[in-house]
Amino acid sequence: MSDVAGRRRARGGGGAARRAARSAVSFETAKYIERNIPNFEVLTEEALEIIETNAETLLEEIGVNFVNNPAACALWKEAGADVQGERVHIPRGLARKLCATAPREFTQHARNPERNVVIGGRNLVLAPVYGPPFVRDMAGGRRYATMEDFRKFVKLGYMSKWLHHSGGTVCEPTDVAVNKRHLDMLHAHMTLSDKPFMGSVTEPSRAQDSVDMCEILFGKDFVQENTVMTSLINVNSPMTFDDVMMGALEVYAKNNQACIISPFIVGGAMAPVSVVGTLTQVLAEVLAGIAYSQMVRPGAPIIFGTFVTSIDMGSGAPTFGTPEASQILYGAGQLARRMGLPYRSGGGLCGSKLPDAQAAYESANTLNAALLGGVNFMLHACGWLEGGLVSSFEKFVMDADQLGTLHKMAAGIAIDDNAQAMDAIREVGPGGHYLGCAHTQANFQDAFWKTQLLDYKPFETWDEEGARDTMTLAAERVERMLNDYQQPMIDPGVNEALAGYVANKKASMRDSFT
Amino acid sequence: MSDVAGRRRARGGGGAARRAARSAVSFETAKYIERNIPNFEVLTEEALEIIETNAETLLEEIGVNFVNNPAACALWKEAGADVQGERVHIPRGLARKLCATAPREFTQHARNPERNVVIGGRNLVLAPVYGPPFVRDMAGGRRYATMEDFRKFVKLGYMSKWLHHSGGTVCEPTDVAVNKRHLDMLHAHMTLSDKPFMGSVTEPSRAQDSVDMCEILFGKDFVQENTVMTSLINVNSPMTFDDVMMGALEVYAKNNQACIISPFIVGGAMAPVSVVGTLTQVLAEVLAGIAYSQMVRPGAPIIFGTFVTSIDMGSGAPTFGTPEASQILYGAGQLARRMGLPYRSGGGLCGSKLPDAQAAYESANTLNAALLGGVNFMLHACGWLEGGLVSSFEKFVMDADQLGTLHKMAAGIAIDDNAQAMDAIREVGPGGHYLGCAHTQANFQDAFWKTQLLDYKPFETWDEEGARDTMTLAAERVERMLNDYQQPMIDPGVNEALAGYVANKKASMRDSFT
Repeated sequence: MSDVAGRRRARGGGGAARRAARSAVSFETAKYIERNIPNFEVLTEEALEIIETNAETLLEEIGVNFVNNPAACALWKEAGADVQGERVHIPRGLARKLCATAPREFTQHARNPERNVVIGGRNLVLAPVYGPPFVRDMAGGRRYATMEDFRKFVKLGYMSKWLHHSGGTVCEPTDVAVNKRHLDMLHAHMTLSDKPFMGSVTEPSRAQDSVDMCEILFGKDFVQENTVMTSLINVNSPMTFDDVMMGALEVYAKNNQACIISPFIVGGAMAPVSVVGTLTQVLAEVLAGIAYSQMVRPGAPIIFGTFVTSIDMGSGAPTFGTPEASQILYGAGQLARRMGLPYRSGGGLCGSKLPDAQAAYESANTLNAALLGGVNFMLHACGWLEGGLVSSFEKFVMDADQLGTLHKMAAGIAIDDNAQAMDAIREVGPGGHYLGCAHTQANFQDAFWKTQLLDYKPFETWDEEGARDTMTLAAERVERMLNDYQQPMIDPGVNEALAGYVANKKASMRDSFT
Repeated sequence: MSDVAGRRRARGGGGAARRAARSAVSFETAKYIERNIPNFEVLTEEALEIIETNAETLLEEIGVNFVNNPAACALWKEAGADVQGERVHIPRGLARKLCATAPREFTQHARNPERNVVIGGRNLVLAPVYGPPFVRDMAGGRRYATMEDFRKFVKLGYMSKWLHHSGGTVCEPTDVAVNKRHLDMLHAHMTLSDKPFMGSVTEPSRAQDSVDMCEILFGKDFVQENTVMTSLINVNSPMTFDDVMMGALEVYAKNNQACIISPFIVGGAMAPVSVVGTLTQVLAEVLAGIAYSQMVRPGAPIIFGTFVTSIDMGSGAPTFGTPEASQILYGAGQLARRMGLPYRSGGGLCGSKLPDAQAAYESANTLNAALLGGVNFMLHACGWLEGGLVSSFEKFVMDADQLGTLHKMAAGIAIDDNAQAMDAIREVGPGGHYLGCAHTQANFQDAFWKTQLLDYKPFETWDEEGARDTMTLAAERVERMLNDYQQPMIDPGVNEALAGYVANKKASMRDSFT
C-alpha cells in the first residue's frame, strides 16, 4: 500500500477534542479540493434571469406541497405565504429573502480534525455512493447488501486517499431491521473511519439518534456549536416536501447540522424534458426547501442540491453521463453561486450493470462536469453502479483512483520560473531528450498525477501477468486494501458509550422491516 | 441499423463536381459540430504572455533544426532568420508575422459535398484513430493490421453518424509494401467512403501520389482551387523538423492542401515535465512550422496541432487521459485562438490494452477536454487503444457512440418558450408526473441524446440476455455494421481511373518494406 502514511498523530485541543478519536495508524487523505481554475458556465445572463423569474412565478402561482405537516404550513403562513391546505403559494421574492440567512460556506468537523472539510466557496468535497440496496463484486456477483458489506465500504472509504468524506448509506444493510440499521451504520462511520459522515433521514427519530450519537462522539456542546453531520434531504419532485424528510430536516436544522436540499429528478418523469424547464423547477424547489430550513433555524448550514438524470424515452430507464445531465449540472451550479450557497451535484454516476467501459464513460463524463461546474459537495463520487441500485466494490476503487485527477486538474497551472523551465529547454536543445535533465530530475516526483490502479505496463508484461482488465485489477486492490485496513484509534470511553447507546436503542424496539 | 437514412441524393454542380461520387444509399452523418457554448480557459493573461514571450526567446536564442533541408534553410535566411548550418534562429516576432497569412478557417471538400467540413472558428470536426500497426478485436485478439482491417475501419467510419471525417492511416496495413500501401489506403478512403480524408506523409513522393489521386477524384482544377486533404505533419520534438515530414508539407502547401503542424510530445521526454514549459516549446515549434508553410505558399491552409501526453516516470510509458494532458490541451487551445488558427488536439486517447473501464475513463477525460478546450479538428476521436499501438474495432464503435454526446453538449441550451416549459409545469403540478403531459409528448423525440450501443435495460432483462459487457455489445455492433455496409456510388470512369493509377504505380516499383 503506497498510500499508507503510517505516521502517528495526537489530537490536540481540550474539551470535546479530548473525547474524540485518537489514531495510531493513519492512512493518507488529501485535503479537500480548493479550485484554482475557473468554473465552466453554459447559461447566459439572459437564461439565468429567465429561470429565476420563472421559478418565482412557479412558487407564487402553482406553489409547493408540504405534505402532512401543519407546523410547516403554519410557519409558511406566518412568514407571509398564501397557504391553501397543504399547498403553499410563496409570494415572489419571499423564498429568496428567507434563504439569505444561510451561510455561504461552513466547516463540517470530523472526529479527526485533520479531516475537517469546508463546504462551499471554491472547494470540492468528495463523498462515496449513497443508498444502493445491492452490492456487487467480481467474486460474488450482485446480491442484497449486508451490514458486513457496509463496514467494508466504510473501511475502503477511510483508506481512499482522494475521498474526503465517509458518506452515509454507502449501501443499505438489508440484514438489519429498518428501524435499527441507522444505529449500526452510524456506529460504523464513527468507529471504523475518522472522516466526516452523514446522518440518518429515514425518520425524524433516527435523525435525533444521529444527533445523540454525535453528542457522545464529539461532546454535547461541541455539536450544538459546530456542524458534525451533512445529511441528504431529497425533495419529492415535482414540488412536494414530505413530512418524513422535512421532519429529519427540522431535527438537523434545530441542532445546527447541515442538510442538502436536493430535488431528485429523472428528467421527463419528475420534471419537463427541457433543460431550462428542469432548472426552473429545481430552483423553485431548492428555494422553498432552503427557505423552510432557515425558518426552522436562521443560519442553519444548508446546501443547494441537484440530482438530475435524463431518461431513456424508450424504456423509461434513467440514464447517466448524458449531455443533458451535464448541462443541468452546469446550469444549477450557476444558480447556486448566484444565491451564494454551497452546491451539491455530480458523482461517478452510470447506468451500467458492470464496472465496464459504459460505467467508466458515463462516470467520467459526470466527474469532469462536476469539477468544472463548481460542485462543492459531491455525493456518489465513487462506487455507484447500475443507476444507484448497486454499490460496487471494484467500481469504488476505480472511481476513487480517478478522483485524484480532479485534484490535480483543480490545482491549476504554475507559472513561476521553475514551471517555465527555460533552463531545461536550453539544456536539452533541438533533438535532445529531457529524461535525464536537471529540471526533470528536480520535478518528476510531483510532475504528474499517479494512478494506484490503472495499468501502464508494456503489452508483453501485461500479457504475461494474465492480461487483466480494470475490473480484475480493482478486485485485487479491494482485497489488498481490506487486508491492510487498520482501525483508527478511538477513546475507549467514547467507544464504550457509543456501543452502549446502540445496544440500548436496539433493545428498546422490536425489529421492523418497514 | 437505425442510422441508415436510405435517402437518395444527387450531387449538384458541374465540372469537377460531375466527376465526383454519386451515392445510391447513404448513411446519416451529423454535420460537424458548431459550438454554441463557451471555451474553457485555464491560462490567465499573465500566463499566456509569459508563454508567448518565452517561445519567441526560444526561437531566437536556441533556434530550431531543419534537418537535411538546405532549401528550407535558404528560405529562412531569405526571410531574415540567422541560419547556422541546420539550426535556424528566428528573430523575435518573425515567425508570428509569417504565420499571419494562414487562413483562420478553411473548407475541406469531400467527394460528397454534403460531407464537406469547415475547419476552424467554433467548429469541431471528428476524425478516427491514426497510425496503429496493430488491430484488436474480441474474437481475434491483438495482431498486425492488414489492408483488409484497414478497409473495415474505413467502412465503419463511413457508417458512423457522429464521425465527420474518414481520417488517414486508420491502421497500418502491414501486409502491403511500405512504398505502396499509401496507394491502397487512399483508394479505400476514396471509394469505400464519401467523407473527407487525409493524405500520405511518409515520403514527399507519396504526398504527390495523394495529390495526383485527388486530381483524378475531384478534377485537377478543383484540387488546385480547393482543399481536399488535411494531412498530419508531426514535429520531431524538441524543435526538429525532419526532411521527410517537411518534404510532404512542401508538396501539400504548394498544392493548397491543408496540413496539421503537430508537435508530438511525451511530456518529460520530448518536453519539460511542467505544463508551462511544454506549452512554451509547443508554441515555438508550431510558430516555426506554420511560418515555414506560409513561406512555401502564403495562405496555405494549416492547423495548430498539439499532441501531448504525460509520462509514467516509473516505467517511462506514455500515459493518457491525465490531468496534465488536459491542462496542456486547454492551454494550447488558448494559444491557437490568440493566433487566429484552427486547432487540432484531443482524441479518445488511452493507455489501456483492452476496451475496458481504464480505456473509457481515459478516453472520456480527453474527449470532454477537447470539446470544452475549443479543438477544431480531433484526430483519434474513436478506435484508439494501447497508447496508439492498436486500432480496436470494439473501441471504434464505443467511442463513436460517445461522440454523439459532444454534439448535444455543444449545441448549448435553448431558452425559448417551449424550452421554458412553464405550461408543462402548470399542467403537471406538485406530486404529478411528466411522462404523459403535452410538452413531453411534443418534445421527447429530440429531448435526449440517444446511444446506439450502451445498455439501459432492466437488470433482469440484461441478465437473461447474457449479461453482456460493453465490449461484447460493441463486438456485436461491429459485425452488424459491416454486414449492413453498402458502398457509396462512384462515377465508374473515376473509379476505373483511380484503380488504374494504383495498379500502374504499384507495377512501377519493387516492394520495399522500409
